[in-house]
Amino acid sequence: MPEVYWDDLDVGFEREGGAFKFTEADILRFANEFDPRPTHTDPEAAKDTLFEGLAAAGMHTMAAWSRLWWEINPGFAQQAGAEMTRLRLLNPVRPGDELRLWYRVTDKRAHPFRRELGFFETEHKLIAQDGRTVMHVFCRIAMERRPK
Amino acid sequence: MPEVYWDDLDVGFEREGGAFKFTEADILRFANEFDPRPTHTDPEAAKDTLFEGLAAAGMHTMAAWSRLWWEINPGFAQQAGAEMTRLRLLNPVRPGDELRLWYRVTDKRAHPFRRELGFFETEHKLIAQDGRTVMHVFCRIAMERRPK
Repeated sequence: MPEVYWDDLDVGFEREGGAFKFTEADILRFANEFDPRPTHTDPEAAKDTLFEGLAAAGMHTMAAWSRLWWEINPGFAQQAGAEMTRLRLLNPVRPGDELRLWYRVTDKRAHPFRRELGFFETEHKLIAQDGRTVMHVFCRIAMERRPK
Repeated sequence: MPEVYWDDLDVGFEREGGAFKFTEADILRFANEFDPRPTHTDPEAAKDTLFEGLAAAGMHTMAAWSRLWWEINPGFAQQAGAEMTRLRLLNPVRPGDELRLWYRVTDKRAHPFRRELGFFETEHKLIAQDGRTVMHVFCRIAMERRPK
């Protein structure tokens, strides 16, 4: 059973944690399936690209965000991302990098007519082991309210 | 060698195509790695969730977008997503669904000081085989300019 509902998180709530490691094999596998460009699939050819070496597909970094969200929020009631906005990938993610997630609740409101749902406005950063922020995004999240 | 540079696409350019199919096995595999919640990993338990049945992880749908972008734009010079905004997942993606991508260039401008780069503002939709739009997003894309 969930332990944390929309009602339980206040504006200003923040959390940081998790660890998502990127190996070269992971980067190649993900990119071959979802973004098969040399900068993500060919360590040699990647040296001559904008990224100047192998970098994880941007979508791979975004998928790590999804995993970290799950990892650092055990017991959360059902949620869904309602809108992601101003998503920026700020630095390349390289083999060996390990990311953690920081997020903060910046606003909350009840659903206008569905008693069982509420919304959060949130800000998120993915931060590498050396302090580089590699991704920044704002996200509206819908979440179950605590049953009466 | 690339054949299509920033200089070659005008405001109003649009394209639609590609085919990305979701099997149940794909949905379970992706979700187990990146978003391991019952609504995406357990066909039985998913019946009692907000999605009322197994649905692909939102991030899986987004990854399909990345793949389709590559698939329908052969010969494009190097590009990178500079900012994604107002990304909304509008309908669940189910086993057996097949998505195509539609996009349009809504604005373009040269990089303020790097002669070799330009930007596009674009609008994207992922559309299922039955006409449902499952994802909508606006994206700023950086792209190489044609060498002088």
